Amino acid sequence: MMDVIREGDDILLYLDGKRTYLVRVEKDVSFHTHKGYLQLGDLIGREFGASIRSNLGVEFYALKPLVRDYILKMRRRTQILYPKDMGLIVLLTGIGPGSRVVEAGTGSGAMTVVLANLVRPEGRVYSYEIREEFLKDAEANLRRAGLYDYVELKHRDITEGIEEEDVDAVILDLAVPWLVVPHAYRSLKGSGVLASFSPTIEQVMKTVEAIREHPFVEVETVEVLMRRMNVGKNRTRPETRMIGHTGYITTARKVLA
Amino acid sequence: MMDVIREGDDILLYLDGKRTYLVRVEKDVSFHTHKGYLQLGDLIGREFGASIRSNLGVEFYALKPLVRDYILKMRRRTQILYPKDMGLIVLLTGIGPGSRVVEAGTGSGAMTVVLANLVRPEGRVYSYEIREEFLKDAEANLRRAGLYDYVELKHRDITEGIEEEDVDAVILDLAVPWLVVPHAYRSLKGSGVLASFSPTIEQVMKTVEAIREHPFVEVETVEVLMRRMNVGKNRTRPETRMIGHTGYITTARKVLA
Amino acid sequence: MMDVIREGDDILLYLDGKRTYLVRVEKDVSFHTHKGYLQLGDLIGREFGASIRSNLGVEFYALKPLVRDYILKMRRRTQILYPKDMGLIVLLTGIGPGSRVVEAGTGSGAMTVVLANLVRPEGRVYSYEIREEFLKDAEANLRRAGLYDYVELKHRDITEGIEEEDVDAVILDLAVPWLVVPHAYRSLKGSGVLASFSPTIEQVMKTVEAIREHPFVEVETVEVLMRRMNVGKNRTRPETRMIGHTGYITTARKVLA
Amino acid sequence: MMDVIREGDDILLYLDGKRTYLVRVEKDVSFHTHKGYLQLGDLIGREFGASIRSNLGVEFYALKPLVRDYILKMRRRTQILYPKDMGLIVLLTGIGPGSRVVEAGTGSGAMTVVLANLVRPEGRVYSYEIREEFLKDAEANLRRAGLYDYVELKHRDITEGIEEEDVDAVILDLAVPWLVVPHAYRSLKGSGVLASFSPTIEQVMKTVEAIREHPFVEVETVEVLMRRMNVGKNRTRPETRMIGHTGYITTARKVLA
Repeated sequence: MMDVIREGDDILLYLDGKRTYLVRVEKDVSFHTHKGYLQLGDLIGREFGASIRSNLGVEFYALKPLVRDYILKMRRRTQILYPKDMGLIVLLTGIGPGSRVVEAGTGSGAMTVVLANLVRPEGRVYSYEIREEFLKDAEANLRRAGLYDYVELKHRDITEGIEEEDVDAVILDLAVPWLVVPHAYRSLKGSGVLASFSPTIEQVMKTVEAIREHPFVEVETVEVLMRRMNVGKNRTRPETRMIGHTGYITTARKVLA
Repeated sequence: MMDVIREGDDILLYLDGKRTYLVRVEKDVSFHTHKGYLQLGDLIGREFGASIRSNLGVEFYALKPLVRDYILKMRRRTQILYPKDMGLIVLLTGIGPGSRVVEAGTGSGAMTVVLANLVRPEGRVYSYEIREEFLKDAEANLRRAGLYDYVELKHRDITEGIEEEDVDAVILDLAVPWLVVPHAYRSLKGSGVLASFSPTIEQVMKTVEAIREHPFVEVETVEVLMRRMNVGKNRTRPETRMIGHTGYITTARKVLA
Repeated sequence: MMDVIREGDDILLYLDGKRTYLVRVEKDVSFHTHKGYLQLGDLIGREFGASIRSNLGVEFYALKPLVRDYILKMRRRTQILYPKDMGLIVLLTGIGPGSRVVEAGTGSGAMTVVLANLVRPEGRVYSYEIREEFLKDAEANLRRAGLYDYVELKHRDITEGIEEEDVDAVILDLAVPWLVVPHAYRSLKGSGVLASFSPTIEQVMKTVEAIREHPFVEVETVEVLMRRMNVGKNRTRPETRMIGHTGYITTARKVLA
Repeated sequence: MMDVIREGDDILLYLDGKRTYLVRVEKDVSFHTHKGYLQLGDLIGREFGASIRSNLGVEFYALKPLVRDYILKMRRRTQILYPKDMGLIVLLTGIGPGSRVVEAGTGSGAMTVVLANLVRPEGRVYSYEIREEFLKDAEANLRRAGLYDYVELKHRDITEGIEEEDVDAVILDLAVPWLVVPHAYRSLKGSGVLASFSPTIEQVMKTVEAIREHPFVEVETVEVLMRRMNVGKNRTRPETRMIGHTGYITTARKVLA
């Protein structure tokens, strides 16, 4: 069925390819932009995707925010994972509705939001983070995306251990993943998947070495590159600048010794 | 809780990094390999990840198949999408539990399996395919993966129209995506996402041109490359050979004119 | 033998990885930097690679400029070719001492400088350019690099014809290379090499189509990517940002019909 | 002037994109292929690029071999450098007519051929190799390409020292480049360039560490990727398979401490 905008809904207000705003629709509140102000309340009862004009006559569109929009607009203190990396981690770990996943560190909650969206409503994400200020950001980000109910944020040092047992996947994005490998092995159910994301090759080397000291199989490390294309008559070409590196993804599957 | 192997379950029998077998566990049936034969019935009641020895003493592991394993072992007649591309499509379309998705062409059902796994149990995948023999393969592949209930396979030519309305996403992987763009626009709910995968740049050009003739925003085309790394003491390096190209991914979001 | 700095020589004054200056060594002239001023005349008689301190005690090194330094420091109005692309063009065309090469457009003269350096002293570069202000830049850049004697700058529109005959290679870096293909065919000696550099795929398509209408063999198009690595203890990784695209290189070899 | 084929000349006999043969033109000698045999002597006096038919009427072309053809057809025992890497090394080291270059290991002589072609006639390549059988291959390969006169092949272990002084560049492609760095520093003239090619990241780390223990500046490591494009109406796209990695190139310039 059609998706109708209701009071209190978030919308991604779209002006152009470079300017979008994640805002809440409320009655009697006007939203100011450099292209004039908008009466967001006028959107109530209309379908997502509807257009709205500012008092200066500039047209905006009210998109329904996707998880990737919440991530893009997140309050953040650090680098977050890119869709290209998160997408491959999702495919390689096999996470889906009902999965129970341990994650560390929570950071701003970007991966947490993606995972929570996919494991709901029965699954759970157990997300470890030692820095309290990050947990607060993550909680705010998860609540805004409406996904907080599927997550257990844990203010704990995952290098000291993982409390959950028989989880489907452990996903690591922290500075010392190799210290977590023994805990991940114990926490995973048989055949469960470990995935670790690291920017440097030294981290990858140490993590792979730690993995090989435990009964894991299908130990693989990959790197993903994404390049944007400009498409248009007589100007079709890859973009001049691209992100040349985010990190390496290492995955492994637990077997029983 | 622990995942126990039951009679009738599929397992991914793991011998080494290059040799795995997707087989069904049945009593009194032995599975023959060049490393000897295995009594798969002995696995019943044991945890996934357990090891089993052939009569020649060679050890295998009984992994629980993930969606990516079902895809890798699919009966197929054509090229299928790669995890790197399917993962990014999932992230960019925002598909998750409950999503209603139109897909074409079904092909061998690789993307169908990924989508069905993520939209279940409430969502649905409507998958169009004109070649009957592909539909049969896809049905067999979906049934094997236990995901057939979440999919409606349609023996129809999607260039003639899409029956479903107000869908969350339309995902195209066929030779003439530009012919489907008008139908996709009508079928999508406001703010819904179109994603198209094409190997050639001419297909991308025509598709982007067709998209621009309709009220879509955030029209973007990207390419994803994945490179495997060899990791090990004094031999850490990217692999010599890689897949240099699979296709371009174009996405766009519907707005209401 | 040792290379000694003489009055009138250019040096590449090196402060650090981000700050270098291409300057002429003259007596009684001081060079001012934000790290103090240097008496460049003090370098006369010393070996290239020598260090010199500013009046503030900051150390600089006097490198002997390479062609790539002249290119980096060129007076330029447009994008110039990158070493990764110029290097491959040199290898694929087989240019070396004695080669006679036609080039268009001259632009700022970056490729001209590379070619002139390799064909000297017997070979020649015939470089076509229709924009007079570019030719002036190119002449200044070639003179500075000491390579002007090996080049004939031509203020002509190469789409109207090439005057030289029996040349070893024709190298194109202009907006409409396909218009030059017939002239290039006539200008090349039998077995000579055409190389064309273009940023967009439409240019490549048209150029390849034009090439195929003439007796050329080994028609190939490639793209070269270069990624920098950060190397250092526990921080080894590809750089975050990279140039994602400069252009495609198409090459072909003339045969006699 | 036109290049005429003479008795004793090498030609690259071109049949199609996948089949070429590097052969010597001699009177009264026929060359046999699966497409019939050719009287190569008939080519004498004709221009390079000329066509010749086999007794079965199949057309071949007589291309003048370029350095890259000699490399492709070399007698070889090991992996050789690719044009993409050799081209960038040429650009980054600034090698040209007159340069004096030390190289190790010689291997099959692929890089040696490229260097000899560019430094001739005044320059010299001093090429170190400890394996005698490689030196024999290299000598044969250099003689065939007509470049042996510009090279001094040295049956010596370069990790024990370099005899030449004040060279313009030292180019390393061997298993333990870091052991050669101190010798390279001594051998280079002030401002000379060291370039090292290594497949693994551990080699790069050790080499960069050794370089940093000596007075070098502009220490940089890069990786070059080349992807072929298929170009043609409605089938334009990057090729499916590509070489994903050959090695990393590290360069540095000597300064005087």
